[in-house]
Amino acid sequence: MQVAVDKKQIPAREKLINRFLDVRTYTETLCRPLQTDDYQIQSIMQTSPPKWHIAHVTWFFETFVLPHFNPAYTPFNPVMDFLFNSYYYTHGQMHPRPNRGLLSRPTVAEIYDYRAYVNEQMLQLMHNIDDSRREELAFRVTLGLNHEQQHQELLLMDVKHNFSVNPVKPTYRDDLKIPQGQSRPVRWLEQAGGIHEIGFAGEGFAYDNETPRHQVLLRDYRLASRFVTNGEYLEFIRDGGYDDVALWLSDGWALIKKENWTQPLYWQQGDDGWRQFTLGGMRELNEHEPVCHLSYFEADAYARWAGKRLPLEAELEQALSMMPVTGNFTESDFLHPVPASEQGQWFGDLWAWTSSPYTAYPGFKPLEGSMGEYNGKFMSNQMVLRGGSAATPAGHTRATYRNFFYPNERWAFTGLRLAEDA
Amino acid sequence: MQVAVDKKQIPAREKLINRFLDVRTYTETLCRPLQTDDYQIQSIMQTSPPKWHIAHVTWFFETFVLPHFNPAYTPFNPVMDFLFNSYYYTHGQMHPRPNRGLLSRPTVAEIYDYRAYVNEQMLQLMHNIDDSRREELAFRVTLGLNHEQQHQELLLMDVKHNFSVNPVKPTYRDDLKIPQGQSRPVRWLEQAGGIHEIGFAGEGFAYDNETPRHQVLLRDYRLASRFVTNGEYLEFIRDGGYDDVALWLSDGWALIKKENWTQPLYWQQGDDGWRQFTLGGMRELNEHEPVCHLSYFEADAYARWAGKRLPLEAELEQALSMMPVTGNFTESDFLHPVPASEQGQWFGDLWAWTSSPYTAYPGFKPLEGSMGEYNGKFMSNQMVLRGGSAATPAGHTRATYRNFFYPNERWAFTGLRLAEDA
Amino acid sequence: MQVAVDKKQIPAREKLINRFLDVRTYTETLCRPLQTDDYQIQSIMQTSPPKWHIAHVTWFFETFVLPHFNPAYTPFNPVMDFLFNSYYYTHGQMHPRPNRGLLSRPTVAEIYDYRAYVNEQMLQLMHNIDDSRREELAFRVTLGLNHEQQHQELLLMDVKHNFSVNPVKPTYRDDLKIPQGQSRPVRWLEQAGGIHEIGFAGEGFAYDNETPRHQVLLRDYRLASRFVTNGEYLEFIRDGGYDDVALWLSDGWALIKKENWTQPLYWQQGDDGWRQFTLGGMRELNEHEPVCHLSYFEADAYARWAGKRLPLEAELEQALSMMPVTGNFTESDFLHPVPASEQGQWFGDLWAWTSSPYTAYPGFKPLEGSMGEYNGKFMSNQMVLRGGSAATPAGHTRATYRNFFYPNERWAFTGLRLAEDA
Amino acid sequence: MQVAVDKKQIPAREKLINRFLDVRTYTETLCRPLQTDDYQIQSIMQTSPPKWHIAHVTWFFETFVLPHFNPAYTPFNPVMDFLFNSYYYTHGQMHPRPNRGLLSRPTVAEIYDYRAYVNEQMLQLMHNIDDSRREELAFRVTLGLNHEQQHQELLLMDVKHNFSVNPVKPTYRDDLKIPQGQSRPVRWLEQAGGIHEIGFAGEGFAYDNETPRHQVLLRDYRLASRFVTNGEYLEFIRDGGYDDVALWLSDGWALIKKENWTQPLYWQQGDDGWRQFTLGGMRELNEHEPVCHLSYFEADAYARWAGKRLPLEAELEQALSMMPVTGNFTESDFLHPVPASEQGQWFGDLWAWTSSPYTAYPGFKPLEGSMGEYNGKFMSNQMVLRGGSAATPAGHTRATYRNFFYPNERWAFTGLRLAEDA
Repeated sequence: MQVAVDKKQIPAREKLINRFLDVRTYTETLCRPLQTDDYQIQSIMQTSPPKWHIAHVTWFFETFVLPHFNPAYTPFNPVMDFLFNSYYYTHGQMHPRPNRGLLSRPTVAEIYDYRAYVNEQMLQLMHNIDDSRREELAFRVTLGLNHEQQHQELLLMDVKHNFSVNPVKPTYRDDLKIPQGQSRPVRWLEQAGGIHEIGFAGEGFAYDNETPRHQVLLRDYRLASRFVTNGEYLEFIRDGGYDDVALWLSDGWALIKKENWTQPLYWQQGDDGWRQFTLGGMRELNEHEPVCHLSYFEADAYARWAGKRLPLEAELEQALSMMPVTGNFTESDFLHPVPASEQGQWFGDLWAWTSSPYTAYPGFKPLEGSMGEYNGKFMSNQMVLRGGSAATPAGHTRATYRNFFYPNERWAFTGLRLAEDA
Repeated sequence: MQVAVDKKQIPAREKLINRFLDVRTYTETLCRPLQTDDYQIQSIMQTSPPKWHIAHVTWFFETFVLPHFNPAYTPFNPVMDFLFNSYYYTHGQMHPRPNRGLLSRPTVAEIYDYRAYVNEQMLQLMHNIDDSRREELAFRVTLGLNHEQQHQELLLMDVKHNFSVNPVKPTYRDDLKIPQGQSRPVRWLEQAGGIHEIGFAGEGFAYDNETPRHQVLLRDYRLASRFVTNGEYLEFIRDGGYDDVALWLSDGWALIKKENWTQPLYWQQGDDGWRQFTLGGMRELNEHEPVCHLSYFEADAYARWAGKRLPLEAELEQALSMMPVTGNFTESDFLHPVPASEQGQWFGDLWAWTSSPYTAYPGFKPLEGSMGEYNGKFMSNQMVLRGGSAATPAGHTRATYRNFFYPNERWAFTGLRLAEDA
Repeated sequence: MQVAVDKKQIPAREKLINRFLDVRTYTETLCRPLQTDDYQIQSIMQTSPPKWHIAHVTWFFETFVLPHFNPAYTPFNPVMDFLFNSYYYTHGQMHPRPNRGLLSRPTVAEIYDYRAYVNEQMLQLMHNIDDSRREELAFRVTLGLNHEQQHQELLLMDVKHNFSVNPVKPTYRDDLKIPQGQSRPVRWLEQAGGIHEIGFAGEGFAYDNETPRHQVLLRDYRLASRFVTNGEYLEFIRDGGYDDVALWLSDGWALIKKENWTQPLYWQQGDDGWRQFTLGGMRELNEHEPVCHLSYFEADAYARWAGKRLPLEAELEQALSMMPVTGNFTESDFLHPVPASEQGQWFGDLWAWTSSPYTAYPGFKPLEGSMGEYNGKFMSNQMVLRGGSAATPAGHTRATYRNFFYPNERWAFTGLRLAEDA
Repeated sequence: MQVAVDKKQIPAREKLINRFLDVRTYTETLCRPLQTDDYQIQSIMQTSPPKWHIAHVTWFFETFVLPHFNPAYTPFNPVMDFLFNSYYYTHGQMHPRPNRGLLSRPTVAEIYDYRAYVNEQMLQLMHNIDDSRREELAFRVTLGLNHEQQHQELLLMDVKHNFSVNPVKPTYRDDLKIPQGQSRPVRWLEQAGGIHEIGFAGEGFAYDNETPRHQVLLRDYRLASRFVTNGEYLEFIRDGGYDDVALWLSDGWALIKKENWTQPLYWQQGDDGWRQFTLGGMRELNEHEPVCHLSYFEADAYARWAGKRLPLEAELEQALSMMPVTGNFTESDFLHPVPASEQGQWFGDLWAWTSSPYTAYPGFKPLEGSMGEYNGKFMSNQMVLRGGSAATPAGHTRATYRNFFYPNERWAFTGLRLAEDA
């Protein structure tokens, strides 16, 4: 949601088309390991069936791009608009979210026909667009592709959860790379406080919630160079972390007692030790890997137990802005966090919880129209996460990127980076 | 659950095998209109995904037949026992019912492999069984096939409900026969009271809950020769039936107000009149057809409004015992009730609610062992229905057959037959 | 709800007035041990605050008696009609049942003023009624007094439950008599089957649901002469009764596992043995007393475990009809069941669960008008209990009296009498 | 929770005693209009019965003061510790919050005895305390009295809600002053941005969550001099504010649609216009009064509709720090907000919602021990409010005071002050 696109930045026709094909194809690549049966599952209200994801990202182009440039556009099937609108209330009514798993029709095959139809229409549009509207088209297509990349990550998160509730513990892919090696000791990156700038202002794409760039006042602080590991988190568990009320926020304590949480999501304790469920199936717990699938409440309790704190989002943005945007993303083919290297872990592996509630930057203005429902309306009750994960497509994160989840949620690839005052 | 099988009644080897193949094949015939996607849906807790049904009926043979005669029997896959046990707690733990829709694996293809494997094993068993155990085998196979027939009806009920919650209102079959003709006026079958006998005692198969045959004391009564029609039920609606508390049982009134029921399940009122959802898709409401998919509470309220009452189960059994077991079953290829002919409606079309709670007959003994969990444990809070429906396979009903549902349930093919004291 | 009152039976003016004063005063006597604070509590949706009971029974006279005979009657306060209507929907709207505990106003003092006002009006009416309407008045007053007696029992049930949820375990009365003695061995009352008559037909008062008297067909049976004792029930518990699924109805098993029931209501197991909460406070469990506060599901499971069954309501009525209507009622001042004497236990002590669902007798007609909402509309999903309890006022039970509760309910003084086929 | 108390600030013995008596007596003064019945009500989980409040504030002294200075202290009744601990888990187990309304015992009279006993013990302690511990005692007593003042406001909030759910709409006091006059036009207080300091640092009492004082970076901003009025809010309603999804945060929209909110809490629309429930009973809605009992979601939606925003907590603290701490508090005897005067509204009348989530100040340290459960553990999912209300006792607020509620809550005396960027 680039507020302004530099004229020189307008992608050439071919470049836009190639980018479109790349992202659209990658979605289908991610779906290739799925059986038709797998496309249908919605294990909890928060997840969506894979079928829904691949239709919804297509709906985005059919709704916000095609008719915008071609008023005579004929939709593939008018019912798609009702079925695959996620939450754009200003656009129209929608099928209720908790019931997404109840739609066996349209079938997976029909959804792929839908994708093909919209792709064909999009290609024609991108080929034939008048120069005067090229910039506008580029903006909307880019937004649509970034939206699709977000759903690529959601697809992996959701498939993982959907499979995890199945007693047969299906394997999404049995040819994934397996993380190896030892985690390196934490180093502490120290930064001086003072007035800094955060938020997006450069060229290229960013969401509206990353703007405007603005000044923040920070204090001297230190950030851990890597995530807390499974081994370190086990010490917290063994020390009675889940039973010591003094470590927990009140809402978190109520939650873990009501739901009987005694460990991260996807962990299982057996007679022969701990195992965890991954996109590659059940695996022995590797103490050198970063602990993942924690809620904010768990991350916060661990930090308190460790005598540290979670970073502010501005602190983490400042640190990330000094690092190359490289790391363990989907293309690394782990789909799981890996032990930290000597250089530490900054981008990729896991979305790091921050202690910052997700609120508007000063002067924030959402996009106009229905596309304005993308980010701003979620600015209550959620916490910011930064950095991208092993389920994020490379290129779909940056230092200013603000992800957000409710503090009780943990099916995202979330991790725990410590901070402290300097 | 024949308590005793007459020796002369032991089916010949070939006959049992043919019967087995007929019933097993018919299940698959009923599934033929389904897409892989459709096999996965569980629209409400009471329904099961088609995939689950076809695996569960197979599990029945794998659990209660094959190892019983062949202790060395190798299961297809041990996890099936956990996944597809419905409610036989004495047999073992099971996957929770509300989560049946969350199992994308085993896939539909794998379930059909499971069926093929068990069929093959069953055929070998039936061919090779020692004469000394032929009777015992015949009993268990017959029970398994009757069980499968019940699930054939459940499959149709469940597919109908699963499809009904989909805004695209899918059609299960578009080549179904469409009911035609006018409903004939009700005639009243009058019967003298006194001591009668009900319950199963003859040869052939019956469930344990139909036994023992025993005496009941009836008063003189009259039974309507056919079901109440849609047209007649519309009068009840137009007369404010759903808003007149005096017509309703207390629990029924609470239910219809909480759930905002103002019409039978599957009815929709549009600007151009009433329509109803069927296995053949949405159709205009035909006033001559019997009203179907009523709860007990609605049937009871209508009867009170009409100045009549619902029949007792003994009354209806007595009447049914005088009629041929013919009517509109699945083989008629309507999968929907039809207007009554001159002869009235007795078997088929719809399961008639009776005013009799489902309780044990005097002297009732459930089957021994886990198979005893089939019927007896449901003897609280449910009401008896009699007769069979357009979704019942021919041959799977009889005068003594006791079906039962909770008074709030209405996704079965239920109907409303009036009675009165003579 | 006397269907017909014999003319000779019309109570003399004075007799009716005395009866009115007796019953009304007894309600207040039962309330005497309560503090103002206690009048306010509604521990669960099923119970009502004592304040509500004493207002509601007054409302009954103000609604169904006073204006009926005196159209110019001025209500004490018109809001009472909304606040204290229980469930007479045909009469008018009402305050929602779950919120009865939220009404601090009218205060207890104001409710007693209301009682005094209505009593005064009733006395005037009874004094001045014209002879031509004396019978009609007697009927309505009698109904109102029987209604009040039912609420006297509910008041004791509810106070017991309200107090039981309080960690300080308040004592309703510390001067109650304490049951003593040993329970006598069970004797079995054997009765021949055949056609018998049950239901009310004589003179005096009965509810509509006890009519009409009609024939039933029974088989030879035996009834235990006394209730199952705490000691006997402990054997069931120790034998793993609450963990043996084969003993339980399906709905009962789901209930006890969801709610973690492992013992009767009001029992507590401590290091020093079992105790139970009574209206006289916490007491050591006396193994000779009848076990009380069982649900139907528990009574049924015990009977199955014991190789017996629960009685049919017709069987128990037949037996009760041969016994004097004497026993341990409220006037005995135990407010708790006592060990059986040599003569056994028939009336009083506990309401005995029967295996008969609460349904209409053949030919049943509810009272006309709003008073018809008294009994008939509850004829689904409940089970019949017979006999009266230690919390029933003497004179308010008889052989034909049909009490009813849902099979999961157990805050009534319910007990367990075994039966078997002869 | 004064982090440090200046030695010179230690209150003289007599002063502390007088302060103790003043605050304790004022609690009882606030209860004087209540009937015994009223002390028992808990209308929703968030509210507590008045009886509970007056016991709980007493428990605070009995738990955190008396035994701390007198290890031989004999509690009034040991069960009080279980019954009246609110949420100090590190101190011990407690009665569940949703069940506070179920405790008729101890009675109101006994609770007053408890208060008298603890008061007597406290007075002895304050008289006799050794000089060496005078400071420590002053700190704990002061904390206890501030705690009691918070519960004075909660008591008024809760009584208002408890009464509001009663159809008779009781009046807490019929001798309250009634707000008069017209609201003055809004003026905009403009402040320059830059680095400012917020948080408590001076002498006197403050809670731990107000510390440490620290720098914040603000932008130029303007604050409205008064709250939004009922009349202004009515325009929002009439403009369809509750039906325009574009105005609402996502969680807010879900809430108002699920709960059918179409107006502030306590408003009623009748044929003759709007009325609202107050502690003085039902009154006509005065358009000149500030709108009160809004949730954060409603305040935020109004601000968006008005083209403004809510203030940050730092902005509001900065403004409040320039104003005298005077205004409409409980002592004004309105117990309701009043139209703004020429000087605007700053302290009192209503707690103003800010757009700042309630989080820890940089360097925040909770108090040691169980008293540390006072504030810090609530730092998730809640929003900060500032200023004090007409239900806040005078003296119990200040510029740095941080109140906090969940964004869906509205039974507090909450109001809506607009802000904008300058």
